[in-house]
Amino acid sequence: MSPPFHQEADSPAARRAGAVLSVDLDALAENFGILAGHAASGIGCAAVVKADAYGLGIDRVAPALFAAGCRRFFVAQLDEGIELRGLLPQAEIHVLGGLLPGLENDFLAHRLIPTLNSLGEIETWAGHTSRLGEALGADLHVDTGMRRLGLPPDELDRLAGEPDRLAGIELSLLISHLACAEERDHPLNARQLADFRRARDRLPPCPASFANSSGIFLGPDYHFDLLRPGVALYGANPTPGRENPMRPVVRLQARIWQIRDARPGETVGYGAAYEVSRPTRIATVALGYGDGYPRALGNRGHVLVDGHAVAVIGHISMDSTAVDVSGLPESRVRPGMMVDVIGPDNSIDAVAAAAGTVAYELLTHLGRRYHRAYSGG
Amino acid sequence: MSPPFHQEADSPAARRAGAVLSVDLDALAENFGILAGHAASGIGCAAVVKADAYGLGIDRVAPALFAAGCRRFFVAQLDEGIELRGLLPQAEIHVLGGLLPGLENDFLAHRLIPTLNSLGEIETWAGHTSRLGEALGADLHVDTGMRRLGLPPDELDRLAGEPDRLAGIELSLLISHLACAEERDHPLNARQLADFRRARDRLPPCPASFANSSGIFLGPDYHFDLLRPGVALYGANPTPGRENPMRPVVRLQARIWQIRDARPGETVGYGAAYEVSRPTRIATVALGYGDGYPRALGNRGHVLVDGHAVAVIGHISMDSTAVDVSGLPESRVRPGMMVDVIGPDNSIDAVAAAAGTVAYELLTHLGRRYHRAYSGG
Repeated sequence: MSPPFHQEADSPAARRAGAVLSVDLDALAENFGILAGHAASGIGCAAVVKADAYGLGIDRVAPALFAAGCRRFFVAQLDEGIELRGLLPQAEIHVLGGLLPGLENDFLAHRLIPTLNSLGEIETWAGHTSRLGEALGADLHVDTGMRRLGLPPDELDRLAGEPDRLAGIELSLLISHLACAEERDHPLNARQLADFRRARDRLPPCPASFANSSGIFLGPDYHFDLLRPGVALYGANPTPGRENPMRPVVRLQARIWQIRDARPGETVGYGAAYEVSRPTRIATVALGYGDGYPRALGNRGHVLVDGHAVAVIGHISMDSTAVDVSGLPESRVRPGMMVDVIGPDNSIDAVAAAAGTVAYELLTHLGRRYHRAYSGG
Repeated sequence: MSPPFHQEADSPAARRAGAVLSVDLDALAENFGILAGHAASGIGCAAVVKADAYGLGIDRVAPALFAAGCRRFFVAQLDEGIELRGLLPQAEIHVLGGLLPGLENDFLAHRLIPTLNSLGEIETWAGHTSRLGEALGADLHVDTGMRRLGLPPDELDRLAGEPDRLAGIELSLLISHLACAEERDHPLNARQLADFRRARDRLPPCPASFANSSGIFLGPDYHFDLLRPGVALYGANPTPGRENPMRPVVRLQARIWQIRDARPGETVGYGAAYEVSRPTRIATVALGYGDGYPRALGNRGHVLVDGHAVAVIGHISMDSTAVDVSGLPESRVRPGMMVDVIGPDNSIDAVAAAAGTVAYELLTHLGRRYHRAYSGG
């Protein structure tokens, strides 16, 4: 692993901490460059930094991306946009969530670009432009298959037939979102692309943005004018089943609190959910689901002790996790030492898969109790 | 539901928020009283407030419990103890996690009581008392069946034979932890109780604490000198399968962003994981796994719209969740309205069970993106 990962690892807070989450801002910047470099020249690259930059800390992540050349950012919630505006006075900030009536001035006060997801939201924004007597920017979102946000087909039909509904609105972007981009050959990808192109042809001309992280790797047809990656920036593999083109950004290490021996017939943890079948040496690691380590990893996950994979045994507790270190010499396992929970040899994708979920959820659940060590940036 | 739950619900932040987490500090205080009242007079009741008070905010929860008469608190990590000391200068604060060498002065500086979990930790603390030339308090933790933290049987034997190892240490509490207290008839309960009593008889006399939330309901034999409830304070049922004796503390509501119709054959959300089989009206709710709403609830959970249970359809997204509102008249479902995600008719226990987990994990994963409205206290 790269040496400068833990520049703050010797701080008093790091020495007290049960676990340390290291975030490599240089790797993050490099990932932005990798993704931006995937498109032809002239096509821009934004960054999705919603949910506290996928759990990694928007206050450190967003400025690092800005320093790496990113100028356009997407968040989900209005309050996230307001927070980001405070961090990046010069950035272009798009808010993907709905525009509810009564919040128009909040968008303007913080120079945030709302996403208009329905005829109702278009009416709300157009009404505001009319009251103010000036044109206002907004993104227009058409749904092509997520059925989550964005104009459904019938509303698109009406809008195409009555373009005056957009009077006073300066369209910043036409956007849509892919449902199955991680599955390269999923038939919905091509259908969504065709629908997006058709929508674009029927609406006033403006730049278009379609590709999320995995969408970027579906090829240039999907790139349009602006890439919009999220999870790949943070190191998750946007091309499942193939080699991960991204650099790992996150490393999670936790300390061993105690080591004990257990005899056959004895049980481990809550609900006595693991029964020892042979003499077993157990290390208790200072990290649990209260830190975002998924409880679903009980009796399923593994961590690395001194580079050696050891199995999680029993249910995961709120504050600790038991692992079976019987296979390691006693001299290699001692209280106070750090074990690797997420890292280069135990990727966020692999840990998430073992827990029956995706890297996105694992990242956003990362707790607040860790010491966080940022390097680079 | 009780009327004063949302005293801050009309603040600008609440109006902007996609979701509002309401915490009823009066119900919390009442729960403390219910639990404390379960023991005979003279037996104390502490509160476990680790992991940011089970996700509900230690800065509001701990002072409310103190105001309700609680004077003794347990946390897991040293840094949690330091934070709590800043909030409650007068409280007695116990730190359950391991005592690693080099951190002794941190405990003293903040008047935190360490838990000694092993002979090694006893040696560390005794060494510190000897260097300082004064007696220092500590809890002693004996393991009776969790095999997580606390002296294992062989170390207990050695300590019982060499009580001088405790020289200079004033024992505040002898503690142990139940593994299966939620299962009233689990044979491990009685075995742990017998082992705890035996350990107590072999060690220098001091007050003892054994019962967690569910342990309190196993009866007076389990009470000893100090009850130590956690999750029941926050409204989870400590007696699964029987009526919940606790008051609900948490309510989670989220806003509807958009409503749309889908036709048979169309799919919903990521991975096209839900296929519509009849004309369906979908509401998109502004809450996702990025807010701690478990992704495992995709195609399994439900929320309440205007008191009516509606099913989650498709995968849960980071920022939103789709629900099927076809069964409700159009007039009862509109953008901007709040739906109940966790509340009196959708308990934390029930939501957690649907997600294949426990209320503890659900609570500690509650995100930071909500607007939080505290009432009472």
